[in-house]
Amino acid sequence: MTSSWLSPGKSAAVALTFDVDAETGVLSMDAKYAKHAMTMTHQAFGPDIGVPRILGILKDLQVPATFYFPGWVAERRPNLVAQVAEAGHEIAHHSYSHVPASSMTAAEERRDFERALEVFKNQGVDIYGHRAGLWEASWQTASLVAEYGLLYDSSLMNDDRPYHVPTESGSVVELPPHWSLDDWEQYAFLPAPQIGSIIEEPLKVLSMWKYELDAMRRYNSLFMLTNHPFLTGRAGRAEALRSLIEYGQSCDDVEFVTCREIAERAKADDSLATRPLQQPDIEAGVFPTS
Amino acid sequence: MTSSWLSPGKSAAVALTFDVDAETGVLSMDAKYAKHAMTMTHQAFGPDIGVPRILGILKDLQVPATFYFPGWVAERRPNLVAQVAEAGHEIAHHSYSHVPASSMTAAEERRDFERALEVFKNQGVDIYGHRAGLWEASWQTASLVAEYGLLYDSSLMNDDRPYHVPTESGSVVELPPHWSLDDWEQYAFLPAPQIGSIIEEPLKVLSMWKYELDAMRRYNSLFMLTNHPFLTGRAGRAEALRSLIEYGQSCDDVEFVTCREIAERAKADDSLATRPLQQPDIEAGVFPTS
Amino acid sequence: MTSSWLSPGKSAAVALTFDVDAETGVLSMDAKYAKHAMTMTHQAFGPDIGVPRILGILKDLQVPATFYFPGWVAERRPNLVAQVAEAGHEIAHHSYSHVPASSMTAAEERRDFERALEVFKNQGVDIYGHRAGLWEASWQTASLVAEYGLLYDSSLMNDDRPYHVPTESGSVVELPPHWSLDDWEQYAFLPAPQIGSIIEEPLKVLSMWKYELDAMRRYNSLFMLTNHPFLTGRAGRAEALRSLIEYGQSCDDVEFVTCREIAERAKADDSLATRPLQQPDIEAGVFPTS
Amino acid sequence: MTSSWLSPGKSAAVALTFDVDAETGVLSMDAKYAKHAMTMTHQAFGPDIGVPRILGILKDLQVPATFYFPGWVAERRPNLVAQVAEAGHEIAHHSYSHVPASSMTAAEERRDFERALEVFKNQGVDIYGHRAGLWEASWQTASLVAEYGLLYDSSLMNDDRPYHVPTESGSVVELPPHWSLDDWEQYAFLPAPQIGSIIEEPLKVLSMWKYELDAMRRYNSLFMLTNHPFLTGRAGRAEALRSLIEYGQSCDDVEFVTCREIAERAKADDSLATRPLQQPDIEAGVFPTS
Repeated sequence: MTSSWLSPGKSAAVALTFDVDAETGVLSMDAKYAKHAMTMTHQAFGPDIGVPRILGILKDLQVPATFYFPGWVAERRPNLVAQVAEAGHEIAHHSYSHVPASSMTAAEERRDFERALEVFKNQGVDIYGHRAGLWEASWQTASLVAEYGLLYDSSLMNDDRPYHVPTESGSVVELPPHWSLDDWEQYAFLPAPQIGSIIEEPLKVLSMWKYELDAMRRYNSLFMLTNHPFLTGRAGRAEALRSLIEYGQSCDDVEFVTCREIAERAKADDSLATRPLQQPDIEAGVFPTS
Repeated sequence: MTSSWLSPGKSAAVALTFDVDAETGVLSMDAKYAKHAMTMTHQAFGPDIGVPRILGILKDLQVPATFYFPGWVAERRPNLVAQVAEAGHEIAHHSYSHVPASSMTAAEERRDFERALEVFKNQGVDIYGHRAGLWEASWQTASLVAEYGLLYDSSLMNDDRPYHVPTESGSVVELPPHWSLDDWEQYAFLPAPQIGSIIEEPLKVLSMWKYELDAMRRYNSLFMLTNHPFLTGRAGRAEALRSLIEYGQSCDDVEFVTCREIAERAKADDSLATRPLQQPDIEAGVFPTS
Repeated sequence: MTSSWLSPGKSAAVALTFDVDAETGVLSMDAKYAKHAMTMTHQAFGPDIGVPRILGILKDLQVPATFYFPGWVAERRPNLVAQVAEAGHEIAHHSYSHVPASSMTAAEERRDFERALEVFKNQGVDIYGHRAGLWEASWQTASLVAEYGLLYDSSLMNDDRPYHVPTESGSVVELPPHWSLDDWEQYAFLPAPQIGSIIEEPLKVLSMWKYELDAMRRYNSLFMLTNHPFLTGRAGRAEALRSLIEYGQSCDDVEFVTCREIAERAKADDSLATRPLQQPDIEAGVFPTS
Repeated sequence: MTSSWLSPGKSAAVALTFDVDAETGVLSMDAKYAKHAMTMTHQAFGPDIGVPRILGILKDLQVPATFYFPGWVAERRPNLVAQVAEAGHEIAHHSYSHVPASSMTAAEERRDFERALEVFKNQGVDIYGHRAGLWEASWQTASLVAEYGLLYDSSLMNDDRPYHVPTESGSVVELPPHWSLDDWEQYAFLPAPQIGSIIEEPLKVLSMWKYELDAMRRYNSLFMLTNHPFLTGRAGRAEALRSLIEYGQSCDDVEFVTCREIAERAKADDSLATRPLQQPDIEAGVFPTS
């Protein structure tokens, strides 16, 4: 008999996750944006205003969350991770630089991965999970997660429930995110780098996410919400987040859980799928190449 | 006297079609994306989760559908087509590679076309219709469809009812799709390849498609819905699909039919338009050329 | 005393205009798209299905409209202009090729302008007004309109009421359009050329345009609606157009008028603004140059 | 004891600001657009129609506002600034050319900054604040603001309340704007330069901004609305602006204040944050460089 990753009587679980990318969200596209003062302050709004505001909401509503930090951000603001950890939330690994693993060599990815671990170690924080910058994992990412003793990854999209990913260094739990539960597509806008088009209203996003949560209750899914403090920390969006959490709390069959706890439960749940990773073999001439 | 492609008493027909593009939806843009683990799992969600979820909805509501498979996808997952066929749905030809025919030479298109037919033949599946990758048919595509003995194509957009397309190899029925009845524009988002902008909520899409169906009842049109399991297989979108089908079923004058059946009826309906295909002659100097 | 361009008791006028661009909407970007069969049929939907469907709505509701034709389209489908004219609507000049005047030399623009006039003359149609392809008039366009004896242009955006534009060949009336009353931004989508992003629902567009009409009643504006049969000819959008017209008809203070009639009235209305055209002088070094 | 930047009993302040960019909004991208007659008239709609229309709304509702002018625009239309100032509104500095400071050298930015000051001086207008073109301040912009004796800047985004920015030339008040309270992302569309995608309806924008204002009342924020007369001067959008102001006026705890007044109050409010500006040091090899 297997134990279930969902608590008894629960139809879906909500993982509230916040990617505190700050400046790395832009610098990982090109270091030249460091010269853009407005853009840098736009990103700094995340740790400066967004994080405390979101912590306030989580405290008001008494829900746990998981905060993913690029090592660079944690290093640059020495008290930031501690501030979040002391509020009782989980801290997780979001690469060092936020540069997509898919654009690094294997050695570069490993170095970036290790360097973030060093930062967290120096700050005395225990880390259980990892998420690739831009979710752009490479085919070795899950293996790194296993090799360095972490429990879970949250970058791959092969399911909307947790699943097991075997690697050469052991199995990890995957907690799949998805673009549709991310605030980036809805809210992000900058002229340089050129990001976004129209900006959506929080009420649309709230409606969409409540509908998604209801649908996931039918399918017993993991509602993996990914928000960015520099985006969702803005007043109207923060209010929509508050309403979303309140809605979830009003559903008796929905539970709010940290990524770590879901991963620990999923680790023990043999009924979840096992999905090996393998890069597709591409026959020459079938697809165009640049 | 001609028989009508619509059943007596029906004002519009719904063809539910699902393009199971999986990885080819991205690889057909550039083979390099095979290195992007997240992107590949994002696409694999289609066959892994989306297809069984959609089959469940179709079974619950007892409606038939047509699933278009690139040969590459069928080949890579040997049981996938059988799983769909055994549920009673039609299987159709969606090229081998999903590469747009408009970007292939005539010989390349023929080879790609044949190769998919070979896959379906090897899997023991009868094929009646074809749809070009990205609907990007060439001027010879309809002729290939006729030459290889298929009944219909579903790539061209010259009408919103079935129509006859004469070719040098005989006439085929065209079952026209349209971008506005496709889930791609509403839901797709990826950073690399760069696809999409904001992501729409399922309730907007549901509202739009119900409105379109109502309008098509006035004009006696074919509601050719094109959905992708890697997109609409997501929980909230699947719920919206369920609601859309339920809405159609609540309309006495709407019928749900496979593409094959519509094509067979249309073949016998002389009142439908005949629309020969001919590439426009372009006089030099009138339009810019790159 | 001046006569008013608005009828007594009317607060706003609606000009329903349809740009029958067909294939030129795409070919004017690059002639290579002639090889794209789907794209060409997508554009041909306009004259094939959209124009008769729209004529049906206009007839049902008994409202006049103005149809702008590129000469190339009129030439290629010899009965198309006649079909529209016989239904009682105005025919207007939409360049020959739909290539933006802003990308042509003065001589090229003149030749393109004349060539369309020749087509209309050969088809026995009287022309009173002009609209540049993509509204991308050059600084000489209004002068060409005057020189060739036309009454009005409808490309410039300096106002939301008719206005007088003096040129070296005499004054013309400008009937200003605007992007927000165009169906292109709301509905257009194609992969090659890459056009559009998400596709909006007709109910949003209907809501937006009713709101605009109400606002224009406050400001005594010209509601210059620009629709494309290959877009708005689609079933749901055609229904929204029908509803919009019905809404306008339900407002006692709104009138529906052809462009020609508005221009004739505006010609005699001295209270309207006169707005000379003059290319800004650009001091070297102030703005970047490519 | 510190005095508060908010009046007693007020939960949030609204600063209505209008950036009268006119042609510079486009010319600052490339001087070549001066050849595009439609585009130039599209931009000229701002001063020609938008400004008087907005002044009318502000007068009807008796609210003060701040108008930001690029020096080039003020120079080209000598009576424009006076027209706004005489209506009782604040005039502010929006660079000379609207070219982003982040794309200029330090010397170029200084020259552009000074040149606008000269224009305002020549027109006899007192200036208290500055906003960078496209909000794209450089790291020296705030210092220039202080050096030339202005009270505040409104370009940086590090907060949603006023804050103090120390510079080598003294401290300035920052009145932070944000993309989500800008009409550009919602409404702007042009084909050349290619700007925008879909165009949003004013009712969506009104809903979003009312929701934001309500949220800001919770957080005691500065609702810094940035609108452009060439966009929001259009009839429907002007109506939505009117409704937004009326909504704010219906809230007893909301006040409407000019930027100058907010900045003066903020100057004396020690409880507001002080946020020094410093360009991030970027270690070689961490982020990609182009």
